Amino acid sequence: MSRTPTDPASEQAAREQHVTDQVLASFAEAPDPRFAEVMRSLVRHAHAFVRDVRLSEQEWERAVAFLRRTGDLTDDRRHEFILLSDVLGLSMLTVAVNQPPDPTATEATVFGPFFVEGAPEVALGGDIAGGAAGQPCWVSGTVTGTDGTPLAGARIDVWEADDEGMYDVQHPGDQVQGRGFLHTDDRGRYGFWGVTPTPYPIPHDGPVGDLLTAAGRGPMRAAHLHFMVTAPGHHRLVTHIFVRGDDHQDSDAVFGVKDSLVVDFDEQPVGSPPPDDDPGGRSVEGTWTRARFDIVLSPEADPGAGGVTEHTTVGEQP
Amino acid sequence: MSRTPTDPASEQAAREQHVTDQVLASFAEAPDPRFAEVMRSLVRHAHAFVRDVRLSEQEWERAVAFLRRTGDLTDDRRHEFILLSDVLGLSMLTVAVNQPPDPTATEATVFGPFFVEGAPEVALGGDIAGGAAGQPCWVSGTVTGTDGTPLAGARIDVWEADDEGMYDVQHPGDQVQGRGFLHTDDRGRYGFWGVTPTPYPIPHDGPVGDLLTAAGRGPMRAAHLHFMVTAPGHHRLVTHIFVRGDDHQDSDAVFGVKDSLVVDFDEQPVGSPPPDDDPGGRSVEGTWTRARFDIVLSPEADPGAGGVTEHTTVGEQP
Repeated sequence: MSRTPTDPASEQAAREQHVTDQVLASFAEAPDPRFAEVMRSLVRHAHAFVRDVRLSEQEWERAVAFLRRTGDLTDDRRHEFILLSDVLGLSMLTVAVNQPPDPTATEATVFGPFFVEGAPEVALGGDIAGGAAGQPCWVSGTVTGTDGTPLAGARIDVWEADDEGMYDVQHPGDQVQGRGFLHTDDRGRYGFWGVTPTPYPIPHDGPVGDLLTAAGRGPMRAAHLHFMVTAPGHHRLVTHIFVRGDDHQDSDAVFGVKDSLVVDFDEQPVGSPPPDDDPGGRSVEGTWTRARFDIVLSPEADPGAGGVTEHTTVGEQP
Repeated sequence: MSRTPTDPASEQAAREQHVTDQVLASFAEAPDPRFAEVMRSLVRHAHAFVRDVRLSEQEWERAVAFLRRTGDLTDDRRHEFILLSDVLGLSMLTVAVNQPPDPTATEATVFGPFFVEGAPEVALGGDIAGGAAGQPCWVSGTVTGTDGTPLAGARIDVWEADDEGMYDVQHPGDQVQGRGFLHTDDRGRYGFWGVTPTPYPIPHDGPVGDLLTAAGRGPMRAAHLHFMVTAPGHHRLVTHIFVRGDDHQDSDAVFGVKDSLVVDFDEQPVGSPPPDDDPGGRSVEGTWTRARFDIVLSPEADPGAGGVTEHTTVGEQP
């Protein structure tokens, strides 16, 4: 090299850049070009972070210890890495990056760490609470495409916390509560009973909780109910509905609130007749709420026109 | 807002920037300004990564699954997150960022995942192999300050793999082998017996191994022996010595090799006299090697002149 560094600062910068260059070059033989692209970008940004903040060795040690603690808390019932992604806004940003461009489609929000496989199927008008404590709530609506066509047989997975703010997997034991799936009828309609969502703190007794404390942030999530909606030929929708009037919407711990997802949960006085669109005709003794949520799915991208393709990447066996 | 987006691409960019802005603002109340600085930089760079590569939701899921597997493999004997930091060059970059500016001081390199507390103290001329298999090796030298002053009583921790490339903690059982610490004598001299380092693969049966495979990279580390040297008033040095002639130095899996750390391990034929600077006067039956490594520690930065200060950050209890 003919470069002759003229001062210690430029020598130092060159030394640091040399490390980054070596690492970038190490992906030259990666068989999958998408993997190489993702990893090179990750290396560039992660190295820029270390340089920009002049990360101390003690801070590096603490970061490694933080990740270890995050791993120690992660199991089939609690995924602390998803929580970490959520509170750093990486989950919502990934949602935003992948939001289909059609503005008439229902907006997406975070997946969260509490979805589990194996929830029970309920009939239209069935109850997904499964005994979860809370005020009964009737949620109904339609699933259509962006052209207004009703989507018959669309699958709707729903999951929610009880009125203590706990999902079933956060309680001891194996009972399944506050989750289930159903299918729309031949006119694209759905309806189910659950419990009225209440605000709750994300689990904050672990490293993510420590991070929130150090940030001066609270752990509360705005009250919500999770939806995942799938129909052939359509983009999978992962979203929530939020309860209008809940005052945690401006400080949601995971940045998940969107105005279009805030809906009315209208309280029904004691003695109200059952909802007219409940095929089960369930009568409720006390008060209950009802919410309407019409879901619009956007068509899947034409695979020949720049749609997302499958790539091999690290993390799972192929 | 009076901004009127004129096209879908700028609307999309604004939507993504809004997420990032919300997350950056969430650190406004952090009590520790250094914590806020580090986290804001992390958020900026991590978000730029997600946007730049247009991370798909499937890739996000795989990233989360990768971190979970990394956590599952991490325990007191194996720290897969350190390995991950190492193979992404983040460890060496942190070393470079923190390298003291004095060019006469011995260069640092990666700490690695195999240091453990509680290694035994050995006397000058003692053997740190503890029964580890390998060709005997005599390593000696001096520890001085950058002004040439010998540092008496400096502590030298050393650790290394056996000739199968395994550290003691990678073998079943609790035997301590290939590690120990000693102190320099009143003239700053040290010397110990160990085994001649051989190249070995980093543990590659986990997610970090999968990452290397996907990158088309090998898992081999250049043959080396670890040092950590501490003396009052001096910057702690974490480094290795590498074996001149080893052909893995250009493809070291963790980017740890520096020319100044490559030393001769001179092979001594059968029947050679013991090393003249071994106070123990140990005789070896077969062949052995000897290496000389003179260590120069730089003075600690004057705390009043921009030295690194302690900061509260997340990851450990204060």
